[in-house]
Amino acid sequence: MNDLSRLCIHTATTKPWSVEMAVEEYARSGVRGITVWRDALAGRDPAAVGRRISDAGLEVVSLCRGGFFPAVGADARKRAIDDNLRAVKEAEALGAPLIVLVCGADPAQPLESSRAQIAEGITAVGKRAAEAGVKLAVEPLHPMYADTRSAVNTMQSANDMCEHLGDPNVGVAVDVYHIWWDPNAIGEIQRCGAAGRLFAFHVCDWNVPTRDFLLDRELMGEGCIDIRRFREAVDSSGFSGFIEVEIFSTQYWSTEQSLYLQKVISAYRQHV
Amino acid sequence: MNDLSRLCIHTATTKPWSVEMAVEEYARSGVRGITVWRDALAGRDPAAVGRRISDAGLEVVSLCRGGFFPAVGADARKRAIDDNLRAVKEAEALGAPLIVLVCGADPAQPLESSRAQIAEGITAVGKRAAEAGVKLAVEPLHPMYADTRSAVNTMQSANDMCEHLGDPNVGVAVDVYHIWWDPNAIGEIQRCGAAGRLFAFHVCDWNVPTRDFLLDRELMGEGCIDIRRFREAVDSSGFSGFIEVEIFSTQYWSTEQSLYLQKVISAYRQHV
Repeated sequence: MNDLSRLCIHTATTKPWSVEMAVEEYARSGVRGITVWRDALAGRDPAAVGRRISDAGLEVVSLCRGGFFPAVGADARKRAIDDNLRAVKEAEALGAPLIVLVCGADPAQPLESSRAQIAEGITAVGKRAAEAGVKLAVEPLHPMYADTRSAVNTMQSANDMCEHLGDPNVGVAVDVYHIWWDPNAIGEIQRCGAAGRLFAFHVCDWNVPTRDFLLDRELMGEGCIDIRRFREAVDSSGFSGFIEVEIFSTQYWSTEQSLYLQKVISAYRQHV
Repeated sequence: MNDLSRLCIHTATTKPWSVEMAVEEYARSGVRGITVWRDALAGRDPAAVGRRISDAGLEVVSLCRGGFFPAVGADARKRAIDDNLRAVKEAEALGAPLIVLVCGADPAQPLESSRAQIAEGITAVGKRAAEAGVKLAVEPLHPMYADTRSAVNTMQSANDMCEHLGDPNVGVAVDVYHIWWDPNAIGEIQRCGAAGRLFAFHVCDWNVPTRDFLLDRELMGEGCIDIRRFREAVDSSGFSGFIEVEIFSTQYWSTEQSLYLQKVISAYRQHV
């Protein structure tokens, strides 16, 4: 995408920067959207951060992240729901129209139980989120995270979950990193778009070889994902929102972040 | 399974042992089957190893592993097919009725191309394998291996591949480690069994957290996979063959292997 009008960057992508620094640098480089991670809000007034973002000419795309609903104990599940209700308040104050849900999983119980608890958790938060004008997006996570991070691991599973919930305020966040390997992914993207549920689109690349389960994501074009194909599929399913760059990388975080930001933008232009 | 009559162990599970040592120790402990990895045959006459195995009262369950068919270059694909033809010869000499295929993937090309090349490779080897009385089993690998190890990452994909090939000599090796996260896995196991294509069943467990992409598998019961549920599903789909313990673990390999073997047997009794 040569045009940067749909480019959004996650604060976690440039994790060494404070949210204030990220806003300033993104705006200066022509980035138009920002997804704010909750850790970037620590000790700050979300409304003030939201004003700073809009004053800089940026748009808040989403708040990352809610979720982590499943747990063997009912008390822990209640605490997770309370935390998600706080996230809704933060999103509302920040001006974020969407919360991305990393749904969670508890390895001490069957995945089916975790999935049922995810549905219960989203239902428990859904009404308040809708009242606040905040949508919720289930993000299917790569199956390598099925033990502790998410029991929703494919686009099909996310679509099925949303269909089961039947709440027009609940949709799906598509991240190429999690679904690129799946022969059903393109078809399920179409299904998701046709149902009006494709709420967010995240990009980065899969490093070959990948050396860390969490923090070894790559710049677009440096790995093995055909990102453009997914972008075109997402667009042709009816999506016209921001394209969000979400890269967790101890390697890139250890480099000079302004130069890295220029690499992100260049990779976006060439490979998304 | 309290009864050990279906217990098979992979030589790679006790990698520090030579195949001769493994045969002796497995037989002494009441293990009835052995799956031989090709590296364990290095510098040996496969027929002599086969005789040693049957003399010890063990059965050869399969030869691991063939596959790795995809490559961007035609020469490399030809070399892969030649290597698989050699594996068929080794299996025949060893007396292995089955070769397990880790199908391969080349990150420099789309997964669809790798899948097409896998089908071509299996077809190129299929006739010779059938003549030798050696079956071939496509093993779907966890999606975290989709970059370089296999473009076949779900039971559905393996079943589709076999259906497409239409060769009664080609089936599926089910390994709980690769498919445990998949909501479609049980249904696809039933589909596989109903088609008479469930040729092998491998067990181990998923470590929480997993610290290495390859060599951090767990003893059954120590991780988060509901192994018994999968064993029951496999059995009720009509499978009555060996249950193969395949654990790659730098941690367990660094311990005393006779004690570790007793742990494997105890875990099999309790959790399979």
